[in-house]
Amino acid sequence: MYYIGIDLGGTNIAAGLVDDSGKIICDKSIPTGAERNYTEIVKDMAELSKEIIVKSGVSIEDVKAVGIGSPGSIDNKNGICTYSNNINMENANISGEFKKYLDLPVNLENDANAAAYGEYTINGNDVESFVFVTLGTGVGGGVVLDGEIYRGFNGVGAEIGHTVVDMDGEQCTCGRKGCWEAYASVTALIRQTKKAMAENPDSKMHEIAEKEGKVSGRTAFDAAKCGDKAAETVVNKYFEYVAEGITNMVNIFQPNKIIIGGSISKEGDYLLKPIREYVEKNDYNRHMEKVQIEIATLFGDAGIIGAALAAKRKICG
Amino acid sequence: MYYIGIDLGGTNIAAGLVDDSGKIICDKSIPTGAERNYTEIVKDMAELSKEIIVKSGVSIEDVKAVGIGSPGSIDNKNGICTYSNNINMENANISGEFKKYLDLPVNLENDANAAAYGEYTINGNDVESFVFVTLGTGVGGGVVLDGEIYRGFNGVGAEIGHTVVDMDGEQCTCGRKGCWEAYASVTALIRQTKKAMAENPDSKMHEIAEKEGKVSGRTAFDAAKCGDKAAETVVNKYFEYVAEGITNMVNIFQPNKIIIGGSISKEGDYLLKPIREYVEKNDYNRHMEKVQIEIATLFGDAGIIGAALAAKRKICG
Repeated sequence: MYYIGIDLGGTNIAAGLVDDSGKIICDKSIPTGAERNYTEIVKDMAELSKEIIVKSGVSIEDVKAVGIGSPGSIDNKNGICTYSNNINMENANISGEFKKYLDLPVNLENDANAAAYGEYTINGNDVESFVFVTLGTGVGGGVVLDGEIYRGFNGVGAEIGHTVVDMDGEQCTCGRKGCWEAYASVTALIRQTKKAMAENPDSKMHEIAEKEGKVSGRTAFDAAKCGDKAAETVVNKYFEYVAEGITNMVNIFQPNKIIIGGSISKEGDYLLKPIREYVEKNDYNRHMEKVQIEIATLFGDAGIIGAALAAKRKICG
Repeated sequence: MYYIGIDLGGTNIAAGLVDDSGKIICDKSIPTGAERNYTEIVKDMAELSKEIIVKSGVSIEDVKAVGIGSPGSIDNKNGICTYSNNINMENANISGEFKKYLDLPVNLENDANAAAYGEYTINGNDVESFVFVTLGTGVGGGVVLDGEIYRGFNGVGAEIGHTVVDMDGEQCTCGRKGCWEAYASVTALIRQTKKAMAENPDSKMHEIAEKEGKVSGRTAFDAAKCGDKAAETVVNKYFEYVAEGITNMVNIFQPNKIIIGGSISKEGDYLLKPIREYVEKNDYNRHMEKVQIEIATLFGDAGIIGAALAAKRKICG
């Protein structure tokens, strides 16, 4: 059987036809046009889904459900996005609108939860407890317990990036000061890199940034790998920021697995090794089996796969 | 039917006979003698249990299970305390030892988890997700999801006091710096009070501490209620410390209910009001139903009741 997975983002709508094993058979991405009314965006999602089904050659009868991962606060039971500032939505009946154009059962999830579920299914299958952390523009994530996405009673749980790790620290976009996101996101890393560059005019980071045309999340990493001391300081401190929050998640959840995703996770072992060492040294569990910490493998596909497979679980059991 | 609940502490063993509704029918407390071998402590727990059953007049046939809440890392499946520094235990087969003296099914839980389950059953019944926070010597707690104690895959989850809220901040007993416990525990409050007293020789806190013979967790609260400015500053900052961690728990779990227990919770509304206001203003959820935050009601009995009812659930279904 097959399932449509849709990753609704502020810039693009990515949709794919996914099989039972979580493999994407056929996919396509179109611009979101986030400034439009949500009903038009949903119509485009439905048209894109139809297009993918036709293109894949799979019979419509074999497509059993549609999963949508959307930014914002999601009422999963009713398929409604109650609020999103990313795409202008308030009490947007996404599932209801979608069905006007394509009559298939729809399951709506928060986008980070959908991505977490994708990583869980592919990289964490069968574990009781699973935490997914994304180090991207923000720090997001999701928690899967006993195979179910943990949403909290109101649907907006697992906002693990919005946990204060440094009281009265850096301003966070959420209004609080010192959230983990304000230290461990790519946005934060760029801020930290720029600060170090201003303080170290001779650092290789300047050369790298000039070549790339901007300071990015890679600038300090690339310079550190060339032996630049100022960049190494940035990167080592950034590792600590990430590890501090991961250790918090370990002490709270003691999950079988924590998977780190998002653009920074492409650093692979270079990121993973110091994080593991920090957690090993600092977590509260000194006598029991330790949490496994791994790097994500699905990257951009996690949203599509997770949305599709969450719909499969919810609708087909 | 009836269940024995035992709260094993570093100082005392408190045991009670508990009915199906969570009411304590008969209870008694004896010194732990924590320096002894655990087998002797367990023998005392069993003898105490028998004594309580006899004293209550309940027939032994009507006592269906024994629940024990123990400090340390607990292997719930096997009834073993794998480690505790509070009472000197390593791979202590508490359930097995207990059964040598009293042949009843035994369920062993971490003490904070048992207390959380007690509060859940009495004050949070029927909610999907429940977080219990104790503000005592440390900051402990427990999480109950879908009626089950959340333990993590290795049994040592829900150590919510050991989440860093202030990187490179106050030294915590766990080895990390800046844990919530190092700011929001009674121990931390006493440290904060002493610091303010040293800086404010005219504060009413000195008079109150002298009368009481020591600086306690109540010193600053009592002085603040008399209008002492230095004490008000201590108390207001302490409220913030508590609220910062509660807001983190709200953003992670979005539970139906958070119950605050431990000795400080006896301050009631005086504590609850500013905490609620802080969370209301700062949590990430701006558009969905809000988490209920309440004060615990069981206090010292939570451990007995929770251990008994967790045993009931585990063993009798």
